[in-house]
Amino acid sequence: MAHLMSTSCSIKISSSYRPFGQPLSEDRTVLPNSFTFKTSKSPFKRLISKGHRAGRSCGVLATAASVSKEVSANPRSGSDRSPNDSSKPQRVMVIGGDGYCGWATALHLSNKGYEVAIVDSLVRRLFDHQLGLDSLTPISSIHNRLRCWKAITGKTIELYIGDICDFEFLSETFNSFEPDAVVHFGEQRSAPYSMIDRSRAVFTQKNNVIGTLNVLFAMKEFREECHLVKLGTMGEYGTPNIDIEEGYITISHNGRTDTLPYPKQASSFYHLSKVHDSNNIAFTCKAWGIRATDLNQGVVYGVKTDETSMHEQLYNRLDYDGVFGTALNRFCVQAAVGHPLTVYGKGGQTRGYLDIRDTVQCVELAIANPAKPGEFRVFNQFTEQFSVNELAALVTKAGQKLGLDVQTISVPNPRVEAEEHYYNAKHTKLIELGLKPHLLSDSLLDSLLNFAIEFKDRIDTKQIMPSVSWKKIGVTPQTVPAN
Amino acid sequence: MAHLMSTSCSIKISSSYRPFGQPLSEDRTVLPNSFTFKTSKSPFKRLISKGHRAGRSCGVLATAASVSKEVSANPRSGSDRSPNDSSKPQRVMVIGGDGYCGWATALHLSNKGYEVAIVDSLVRRLFDHQLGLDSLTPISSIHNRLRCWKAITGKTIELYIGDICDFEFLSETFNSFEPDAVVHFGEQRSAPYSMIDRSRAVFTQKNNVIGTLNVLFAMKEFREECHLVKLGTMGEYGTPNIDIEEGYITISHNGRTDTLPYPKQASSFYHLSKVHDSNNIAFTCKAWGIRATDLNQGVVYGVKTDETSMHEQLYNRLDYDGVFGTALNRFCVQAAVGHPLTVYGKGGQTRGYLDIRDTVQCVELAIANPAKPGEFRVFNQFTEQFSVNELAALVTKAGQKLGLDVQTISVPNPRVEAEEHYYNAKHTKLIELGLKPHLLSDSLLDSLLNFAIEFKDRIDTKQIMPSVSWKKIGVTPQTVPAN
Repeated sequence: MAHLMSTSCSIKISSSYRPFGQPLSEDRTVLPNSFTFKTSKSPFKRLISKGHRAGRSCGVLATAASVSKEVSANPRSGSDRSPNDSSKPQRVMVIGGDGYCGWATALHLSNKGYEVAIVDSLVRRLFDHQLGLDSLTPISSIHNRLRCWKAITGKTIELYIGDICDFEFLSETFNSFEPDAVVHFGEQRSAPYSMIDRSRAVFTQKNNVIGTLNVLFAMKEFREECHLVKLGTMGEYGTPNIDIEEGYITISHNGRTDTLPYPKQASSFYHLSKVHDSNNIAFTCKAWGIRATDLNQGVVYGVKTDETSMHEQLYNRLDYDGVFGTALNRFCVQAAVGHPLTVYGKGGQTRGYLDIRDTVQCVELAIANPAKPGEFRVFNQFTEQFSVNELAALVTKAGQKLGLDVQTISVPNPRVEAEEHYYNAKHTKLIELGLKPHLLSDSLLDSLLNFAIEFKDRIDTKQIMPSVSWKKIGVTPQTVPAN
Repeated sequence: MAHLMSTSCSIKISSSYRPFGQPLSEDRTVLPNSFTFKTSKSPFKRLISKGHRAGRSCGVLATAASVSKEVSANPRSGSDRSPNDSSKPQRVMVIGGDGYCGWATALHLSNKGYEVAIVDSLVRRLFDHQLGLDSLTPISSIHNRLRCWKAITGKTIELYIGDICDFEFLSETFNSFEPDAVVHFGEQRSAPYSMIDRSRAVFTQKNNVIGTLNVLFAMKEFREECHLVKLGTMGEYGTPNIDIEEGYITISHNGRTDTLPYPKQASSFYHLSKVHDSNNIAFTCKAWGIRATDLNQGVVYGVKTDETSMHEQLYNRLDYDGVFGTALNRFCVQAAVGHPLTVYGKGGQTRGYLDIRDTVQCVELAIANPAKPGEFRVFNQFTEQFSVNELAALVTKAGQKLGLDVQTISVPNPRVEAEEHYYNAKHTKLIELGLKPHLLSDSLLDSLLNFAIEFKDRIDTKQIMPSVSWKKIGVTPQTVPAN
């Protein structure tokens, strides 16, 4: 972690709220007095980087200092906080807090008064390098992101850089940060990525399953009252010919009745990894009394939240490529660049969708209303259902209003999935907790399309078409040729 | 693998069928002219060990020679066999063929005329060393086992020693042996082992899930017509309050109906690993057209099969310890040594059971009646249901007939499980294929008890009580103190 010890940077930060997408103004002054980040190898040393007010930029001096709060030999005895102690802000560890949903969530929770730590290995950025992909938006380093956040809001988000599959690292983060809730986004989250080749399939399942097992063991060992908020996916259910319930279904069979886990029919090694996680977590709730909420999330669209809109250094990533990009975001980028919308197969594939502003809202609701000890609670986290064809029609209409010539092409479906099917998934539990959905609107589509147009010059059209086939996956490691 | 290159041994083999459990006679002469085994590092070199008729022992000369059949660059083009070509014996790869069920199955299939290869890392033997455990029966090395089998029957079982989590090794075994069917026992198969500590929990899931993923990829890449016969467990279902079906259940819900995977409620990291496998396999059947049979096996009892009874060098292992031993076998050994039968909790835990002679029969039936391409077929592989209390009563009665004073004690349940529950699991599909069950009988119990009495002097009573707690599992690696 020597590279962190020598970190220095020059950042430019606006002193005031600046509408997203506008050029930076010239008065960039406000800088943090101090902020912290931590590394896996020296979690009990805190790197304190002092920001100097220096006009339009800052020099950052990194020094190592002892952490003020020593971790006791018995981690629990050293804690004077209860997860339900309302006099103090809850401490929330966001694993995967440098990613698309994780970053937006970490900022949202910090803004709402939670004490937040981000735990991330940053491997998602490595995937982009390895596959030759890039976010449509230029995204800052996690270090600059957090400096900027501190500068704008005065709030500190702690940073632990490391891999949760490394249990020693994870233990140190638990004992150092002492979370009341863990929000776990820290998984390889792309279905196409998991279907590139054997090694990526194996990586996805190993990384996701072992990482989650480690989180469960850390909770049992160090923070047994902690609440796990785990990101699952609606893709765990597949497309059954009956209504999809939220996690459980009551079945009457041969004169007897029981409420059982809803049957899962996942359709990629990634989706399967989430099913494995769900089963593992359910067991530990029963066996150990873990309290857990599984958020079976739909397809997320949008890029702006109240917090990421505050400054360009806080911009969230926007993936439009065939591996990490998701349906609606991809269509908006395609429309912006004049590429036909890529409908896979017949386009009747129907899924649940939600605005990223609802992702952060749902996570906060889950934290604020924790599961009981031993409870494995499942919420379906989406707000509306659309077929791919319906999305294409909406984007076409919105694009035409902006004067874009939007075409649609049918692409041979690289996935193995039903292209016409029944789909009716329940999603009432988060509404009951108070979710106020941002339904898909013309204004959101306008905003997303305009955003894509703004960054049009950054688009690499070679990334748009799907390059990963569910049927052609092989055992030879795939590399991306430079072309 | 240098240690294999220098293998030499002196084995003593009876020339004729000898009833199990009787002392070896003095006329030990018949030895194989040649037999083969292979290693992960040199699969295309064959070690030909020539047995010399040398009275009561043999000297084995190990030399390296080129394999006669070259593997072509395109594995499939080099194959002139079809899985359904009845003119040639089917080639069956038994992964985990050195274990309790695997060994009995490998011999049974070999005896029935199949060409058999055993693939095994031998790690099960390492677990015994590490935990200070041992089989009640003295078991020979896999090398001696196979030499003996060759000597007695003239049949060769090929041996590939290596770890299926090593895909390079697995690829080589597939391309060398070219299986028509793969019987996959090659997993960490103990629930208590998976609950010893974090590292064993993680090992179990990683080992089992990745090993199975590798098998699926090898089938897709090298032997797409191959039939996977995968050992699952009845423990995947848990103890629902409705009848357990064979893999799937038809659900009517809100006016619609679908047949879906039966909901799973596994209760250890081991059982969960099998659920993960089932989900992964089901997906590859759908996505790639893999043909697979998942044998959800009940608790296996007994130790003798027609083949393992032929010679003491072919003896199967009999585990009676708290980690690897299973209910009925453990009770018989406890009765033999005068240890009270250890009923966990209330003893109302009901499960499906089967004789190991039915295990081998079921696997053969699955191979002889393969799944169709793309079919994921699930059979519940057991013949009778018993509660733990019922088993204890049966063993008590059988022991008393032999003059044993059999007591029963209730042990605090180390597991997290219902101790009184509804249980009715279907198991008709293997019967429909022709299974002739060996139901639990007085004669089997007599035989098992007498067998345990014969090896009574080998029993280490410290191994009998349960030592692993579902609730107390922690993150510190557990070692077994020498005492």
